Amino acid sequence: MTTDPPAVTLGIDFGTLSGRVLVVSVDDGAELGSAVHEYAHGVVDRELPRGVPLPPDWALQIPQDWRDVLRLAVPRALADADVTPEQVVGIATDFTACTVLPTTWDGTPLCELPEYRDRPHAHPKLWRHHAAQPEADLIVERALRSGQPWLARYGGRISSEWQYAKALQVLREDPGVYAAADRWIEAADWIVWQLTGAESRNPCTAGYKGIHQDGRYPGEAFLAGLHPDFTGFTAKLEHPLTPLGAPAGRLTPRAAALTGLREGTVVAVGNVDAHVTCAAAQALDPGRMLAIMGTSTCHILNSDVLAEVPGMCGVVRDGVVPGLWGYEAGQSGVGDILAWAVRNAVPDEYAAEARSRGMDVHELLTERASAQPVGAHGLLALDWHSGNRSVLVDHHLSGLVLGLTLDTRPEDVYRALIEATAFGTRTIVEAFETAGVPVTDFTAAGGLLRNRFLMQVYSDVLNRPVHVLASTQGPALGAAIHAAVAAGAHPDIRTASAAMGRRQENAYTPDPARSAAYDRLYAEYRALHDHFGRGGSDVMHRLRALRSAALAAHPTT
Amino acid sequence: MTTDPPAVTLGIDFGTLSGRVLVVSVDDGAELGSAVHEYAHGVVDRELPRGVPLPPDWALQIPQDWRDVLRLAVPRALADADVTPEQVVGIATDFTACTVLPTTWDGTPLCELPEYRDRPHAHPKLWRHHAAQPEADLIVERALRSGQPWLARYGGRISSEWQYAKALQVLREDPGVYAAADRWIEAADWIVWQLTGAESRNPCTAGYKGIHQDGRYPGEAFLAGLHPDFTGFTAKLEHPLTPLGAPAGRLTPRAAALTGLREGTVVAVGNVDAHVTCAAAQALDPGRMLAIMGTSTCHILNSDVLAEVPGMCGVVRDGVVPGLWGYEAGQSGVGDILAWAVRNAVPDEYAAEARSRGMDVHELLTERASAQPVGAHGLLALDWHSGNRSVLVDHHLSGLVLGLTLDTRPEDVYRALIEATAFGTRTIVEAFETAGVPVTDFTAAGGLLRNRFLMQVYSDVLNRPVHVLASTQGPALGAAIHAAVAAGAHPDIRTASAAMGRRQENAYTPDPARSAAYDRLYAEYRALHDHFGRGGSDVMHRLRALRSAALAAHPTT
Repeated sequence: MTTDPPAVTLGIDFGTLSGRVLVVSVDDGAELGSAVHEYAHGVVDRELPRGVPLPPDWALQIPQDWRDVLRLAVPRALADADVTPEQVVGIATDFTACTVLPTTWDGTPLCELPEYRDRPHAHPKLWRHHAAQPEADLIVERALRSGQPWLARYGGRISSEWQYAKALQVLREDPGVYAAADRWIEAADWIVWQLTGAESRNPCTAGYKGIHQDGRYPGEAFLAGLHPDFTGFTAKLEHPLTPLGAPAGRLTPRAAALTGLREGTVVAVGNVDAHVTCAAAQALDPGRMLAIMGTSTCHILNSDVLAEVPGMCGVVRDGVVPGLWGYEAGQSGVGDILAWAVRNAVPDEYAAEARSRGMDVHELLTERASAQPVGAHGLLALDWHSGNRSVLVDHHLSGLVLGLTLDTRPEDVYRALIEATAFGTRTIVEAFETAGVPVTDFTAAGGLLRNRFLMQVYSDVLNRPVHVLASTQGPALGAAIHAAVAAGAHPDIRTASAAMGRRQENAYTPDPARSAAYDRLYAEYRALHDHFGRGGSDVMHRLRALRSAALAAHPTT
Repeated sequence: MTTDPPAVTLGIDFGTLSGRVLVVSVDDGAELGSAVHEYAHGVVDRELPRGVPLPPDWALQIPQDWRDVLRLAVPRALADADVTPEQVVGIATDFTACTVLPTTWDGTPLCELPEYRDRPHAHPKLWRHHAAQPEADLIVERALRSGQPWLARYGGRISSEWQYAKALQVLREDPGVYAAADRWIEAADWIVWQLTGAESRNPCTAGYKGIHQDGRYPGEAFLAGLHPDFTGFTAKLEHPLTPLGAPAGRLTPRAAALTGLREGTVVAVGNVDAHVTCAAAQALDPGRMLAIMGTSTCHILNSDVLAEVPGMCGVVRDGVVPGLWGYEAGQSGVGDILAWAVRNAVPDEYAAEARSRGMDVHELLTERASAQPVGAHGLLALDWHSGNRSVLVDHHLSGLVLGLTLDTRPEDVYRALIEATAFGTRTIVEAFETAGVPVTDFTAAGGLLRNRFLMQVYSDVLNRPVHVLASTQGPALGAAIHAAVAAGAHPDIRTASAAMGRRQENAYTPDPARSAAYDRLYAEYRALHDHFGRGGSDVMHRLRALRSAALAAHPTT
């Protein structure tokens, strides 16, 4: 007796340094195989491929690197999974965001035209391109002055990473490129165009990165106030939005040839890596917060309720799943603060012990820190080494460690930093609840799941169970779930998520005694948080200003 | 033609781990030779020599170790200097303080009697014996309640390190030893007794460590309030005080045989290492502050003025030189905070580079830190890792580092800690001046003189020239100067200091631009200092209490 080979979908996750293709059974979400392709050019932050130097804070990418994921990793993933193109019923992608590029009417990146290939602004700007801060500041200032209703949907702040700031930088610095850009498009949508041959736009990037609210982009009068030639910018964006989980189109013959897949395979509309992970983690119902914890942490939460939550990154109708308000918040530094401590504040005997025991220094510090009772190190830290995204929305804040004695050891500081990031998460959860947006449960995903002690600290600090995404391929699995919906294998994203997602319930549960002890430390954290973050003392801003002035006066330092 | 061999004196400095003998010309202070003897028992803080274990926070010493300095190092120093005993016109000693012991009427340490040799309380308590804190707390509480006039002379606090607290601990914990102690005497005076065969007492330890003020010790009624059997304690101390620089007696035949010196050689009255250094540094005139900078810093200042300076350690009439009020203040952590940073917060590549370049890690960090303009690291620290002695007198405060970013490097933190200790010194200088005690100039001595960058930071932060003691043998040279006065080679200490001391004037002078920049950082330091040290936030005390509770509940940690 034979059975039909299982129907599968592909989830293709475009990250910062590589793209990953995951082959997933549409029936139960089983991960059958995968392949990774590292981008040949990675992050382009020093010079263009032909040597044109880039200013500080720039970060670009090369579109061909993304196509190569389709060309190289898709066939390898199929082979790894031992499935045929005929089994593939749908494809979906997810991308970093806001990663955005100027193209012609047919989707050709301007940087691929000979006349623009040496023009930096003709290239895709990666999410972490940070050179458009003056433009972002101008947008916020003018939005405040003119009372733009959408500003509150973004916690009062438009990021320099987003579409409008980046486009305004192009206009100001290279108006020729700006004029030549028929379309200004997220890579999340551009990659789908490569597959389907037709432009489509998704509501996630349009909402969170493109200031698309209540069915429209900011008006012409507002744009004119930013720059006389910025009127008409919306025309470079305007396009009907395809609901998440819906098909954007079908694979073209050319894309079929590129990937080895069948012509006509259904392709879902584009999506963003963090947001699509909710489907993988079964964290789509109202009140289920998902925290994607890595170098930084992104919090996604769906709700029936629209509210203005202080310091959120954005709230977008249908932004995660159709029919709900999708909230996003964030902590600008988490894993990278721990990495900073390991890089800068661990003595050589620790490094030597870790080497001799075949563990990394994070593991050694965690082992030593985890044996302590709560509060035994006597320390309290503020997790603001990269500033504070939510809830203070202030990137000029800085980190603090308090309680140091001559007995303080590296593992004590490491643990205090872990705890500070957990207190930062609790601050965000409480901000939602205080604003009337219930957070009924908490799920974690991302690289920090590896650190079981850290996860237990989060559970104790939040005094809640922590559920976890039970896959290391969260974004790609989430995309594959969206592909299954687009292909009609499941009726909607939540049903598909229930069938194909993977979540370990109550992976961590709080210890009452530790939670009670952390309540006391959290009260101290909040007091410091408000003192240094809400005007009790503005010393962090003054120190940063002194620093900038000192470095400007001595540029060689 | 021949000249008479020069007259010399010996300065004998009894430190925490060793004793040093310096041979000095009475004419010009030339250092002709020296010898060091390391104590065989060092600091006895775990068990007595025959194995009796000691509780935590204890620190004892063994008297024979001190006698061995006389027996072994004096002859070696004479040989090193190539001088004969006939050239030695006087001897003076200085000692750590308060290092104090119980003896019989003839000066025999109780610990040298067979019946007491295994009794911990029969041994000398080293200055850093910290187990008498309950007794110190009781003394302060009762002094406040009964309005003792002497309390203000000690900044409102009697240290657990001092004579009364240590003696009360003996009475409470081993009343048999207490009763057997005919005399309770500073090692500074006991060592002179060994040389002269007769008890003498000096006004420096009597005043700074023995609560001797305005010619008397605390009264019987006060002592009775501490413990019914503590009345009569003063009888164990009472003895005429010999002015500093005066002879205490002459070398006995037994001491001459022990040391190889001539019988009848003049011996000066005892003294304390920090205070006697003022003579070496020519920092005796009113208004000249001497900072002895090592693991901690001790500030000594003579003045015509008696005032209550907040947070000073003590003010004693004739306590440094006859005829002036001698003030003492202190920073409880300086060099040891920098050592903590090197031990705990420097990565292995720094250690490797220092090794490969043949420098120590302090030198490497200093080299990297010194190139920065003021304020470029963006950091601010509080130097309270060992609490704060002056001006807050609060040992339950703790250290803080603020302004951390992902770019913060180990040398940045190191420099911020150096600067914090300089700000701490400036706080003390300003406290004196605000209280009406002028500080006309500032001289530095001690091990931290090695770090020229650190010294320049102090000059810039204080916005004053920093003079330095131009000898690495400050205490021993100071003692030798006192010996010359006792021997009649100079009429008084200040004259002898002018002839024999060594001071480099204006070794460091402030840079106006850096001083102006430091003024701004100092203002920030003072704001944090007052916020965390004067009740704005009591978080440091609460964290310490949580820590103590956590460790008490989990004693194995």
